[in-house]
Amino acid sequence: MKISNVEVRDLVKTYGSPLYVYDQTMVEDKMNLFKKYLKCPELDCDVIYASKAFNCKAMIQLVSKKDCSLDVVSGGELYTAYATGFDMSRVYFHGNNKSIDELNMALKYKVGTIIVDNLMEARLLSELAKDIDYTVAILLRVNPGVEAHTHEYIVTANIDSKFGISVEKKEDILDLIHIISSCPNLSFDGFHAHIGSQIFDKQAFVLEVNKVCEFVSNLGIEVSTLNFGGGFGAVYTDEDTPIPVDVVCDTLIQAVKSNVEKYALKINKICIEPGRSIVAEAGSTVYTVGFMKETPHKNYIFVDGGMSDNIRPALYQAKYSCVIDGKEDEMPSKHYKIAGKCCESGDVIIEDAFLPEVKPNDLLIVKTTGAYGYSMASHYNKALGLPVIFCKEGKSQCVIRRETYDDLIRLENDL
Amino acid sequence: MKISNVEVRDLVKTYGSPLYVYDQTMVEDKMNLFKKYLKCPELDCDVIYASKAFNCKAMIQLVSKKDCSLDVVSGGELYTAYATGFDMSRVYFHGNNKSIDELNMALKYKVGTIIVDNLMEARLLSELAKDIDYTVAILLRVNPGVEAHTHEYIVTANIDSKFGISVEKKEDILDLIHIISSCPNLSFDGFHAHIGSQIFDKQAFVLEVNKVCEFVSNLGIEVSTLNFGGGFGAVYTDEDTPIPVDVVCDTLIQAVKSNVEKYALKINKICIEPGRSIVAEAGSTVYTVGFMKETPHKNYIFVDGGMSDNIRPALYQAKYSCVIDGKEDEMPSKHYKIAGKCCESGDVIIEDAFLPEVKPNDLLIVKTTGAYGYSMASHYNKALGLPVIFCKEGKSQCVIRRETYDDLIRLENDL
Repeated sequence: MKISNVEVRDLVKTYGSPLYVYDQTMVEDKMNLFKKYLKCPELDCDVIYASKAFNCKAMIQLVSKKDCSLDVVSGGELYTAYATGFDMSRVYFHGNNKSIDELNMALKYKVGTIIVDNLMEARLLSELAKDIDYTVAILLRVNPGVEAHTHEYIVTANIDSKFGISVEKKEDILDLIHIISSCPNLSFDGFHAHIGSQIFDKQAFVLEVNKVCEFVSNLGIEVSTLNFGGGFGAVYTDEDTPIPVDVVCDTLIQAVKSNVEKYALKINKICIEPGRSIVAEAGSTVYTVGFMKETPHKNYIFVDGGMSDNIRPALYQAKYSCVIDGKEDEMPSKHYKIAGKCCESGDVIIEDAFLPEVKPNDLLIVKTTGAYGYSMASHYNKALGLPVIFCKEGKSQCVIRRETYDDLIRLENDL
Repeated sequence: MKISNVEVRDLVKTYGSPLYVYDQTMVEDKMNLFKKYLKCPELDCDVIYASKAFNCKAMIQLVSKKDCSLDVVSGGELYTAYATGFDMSRVYFHGNNKSIDELNMALKYKVGTIIVDNLMEARLLSELAKDIDYTVAILLRVNPGVEAHTHEYIVTANIDSKFGISVEKKEDILDLIHIISSCPNLSFDGFHAHIGSQIFDKQAFVLEVNKVCEFVSNLGIEVSTLNFGGGFGAVYTDEDTPIPVDVVCDTLIQAVKSNVEKYALKINKICIEPGRSIVAEAGSTVYTVGFMKETPHKNYIFVDGGMSDNIRPALYQAKYSCVIDGKEDEMPSKHYKIAGKCCESGDVIIEDAFLPEVKPNDLLIVKTTGAYGYSMASHYNKALGLPVIFCKEGKSQCVIRRETYDDLIRLENDL
């Protein structure tokens, strides 16, 4: 099997197993698509890559190359952007509990936009920003009371989310805007909302736009910017049917335009924050098949990784699909349970994979691990961190190296 | 609040927040207890610390000091033991999918015991061990078909577990023993079984011993060693009622003795593998309260950590209890939801904590995080790894240092 014209078996020869591999062309194409379709003459449009899905220097350099903005959610992500030389004016800094150190760091790095989550943050930030020598754009995260996942959305859900302020708390929101507007170095630009992940029904986004715009209209103040967050989805298995990028962008734009008209709003900029939808499908995890075992009802394949490099099956009961290198075109003939090497019975990657006959040392490629794979990896069982390889047009490059055993103990002191 | 006579607020002043802190005395006392009660004149008894619960050099040094053996489940844990200078003859090497490299490493380090999981491993190991200059003890992991958690146990459960060979597959087991016994450097000593975690009913262990001994008797071969694994449990909240160490040890010993008599077995050594029960309650996570927020039905406390340092609430719906430093003796008056700073709605540490009035900058101490806290930590949201502090009799010591932002990007290359 080839990824961006690089043989997977050659990657394993060069970089070892297991590893994460990204089709760099696919990542770039996905950003191109969002840039192409989130466009409209009446509105500035910003595509902001939600880097918690996968954040490293090389990825941030791709974001820069594709003229996208960057969403960071912690000091660590912020530092990586800065260390990469990313244009900090295009950084959006999120988080429900940013520390003083993180906020100061953001101001020192001259981050363009801070998404404020709550009143306490507004008060703290207005203190910290007193003596800075530039203007920070501020968006307030509001909770529109809409929650969406796959084909469902719930209109009055999630009002107790830890994120943002409920749109029903009008007084709190006006207080917060007042606090921000009273600080000369902070510019209150508008609102941010985010309604869920893996959203496959475009009506959920229409509902989000409607709710946010209705709220803005009721608030009686002019705002310039609305950020509708992410949630655009990826294909993990045949069951997943994300909304095509052109459709989701057009849906959002049309919904905003009709609301702008309906309520005579002064919105001139909209933003979205795709993360998973940009990197998930471009990434795969390559494992080598180790021991195999038959139990009364299962044919087990054990791979040389597991929940330490992909926690999503155990954490969210997430489903994945896989292929066996060199057997992509063979007919499937056997059901396998694919488990990792962690010392835990829940360490299962795929509960039921229907595959051609598998042999030890086959390379098993789990698809769509590009989002929340590396970024949620742990050292559970003192597993070594996997390398990340980018492939493009027949060439490969290691953008994150594999950990060594000495890496694992580098922080440890003797008793 | 003091931990082993060290003020928690002094720890935060010295080492920063958040941090993991262990009461070293408690860890040592717990190992002393197991050593004291797993004793019987007719049987050799080995207490093996299951280090996946918490593995670092300092912890391994404590294991050595307390004359316990060590259970490792990966090359990383094995390497740490070796780098610490632990007596490798007292290492038990587990895992359902050990790699060739890991097995070779174990043989090079002269690991005392390898727990073989399956037929393929037996075949591989008998090849690899051909040319070594010492004898490795081998236990076979069997699946007795018993599963136990808290107050329940199920007799015919778990027969499709990824671990070990079912006791019903007698032919496979005899094949495996034949393979091992045919290799002059491998000594087949007996069996290993493990039935679950957080087991609060001692009858589950009696059942395990009965099932394993009945199986050994039916097999018609003499074995010297039985290892009954772990599962002894810890107190996370008031609802948890682990079996006292003396009771669980006595229960196991009496069950083994009665089976030895009943079936005229030649067992002369028993082992147990406590992990969680040794370190969980001795460990706490100290957070600083940051922003607080009221939603329609919740009073949120946000702390400066979250699912990146404790995945168990999100992964297992695990419950924890907490205290506020300096307010331990105040009456609780308010229900709080304690959430972390990760950009994910599931990042909640305690769903409902009934506490005295909490203020920003209070220190919030989550108890019983000593097992599977640090060991399952991730860099999700590019969170910095927390330091681990050991406290003993008024003195503190950093046994794992806090990560820096540069640590986070040290593996990353430019595009």
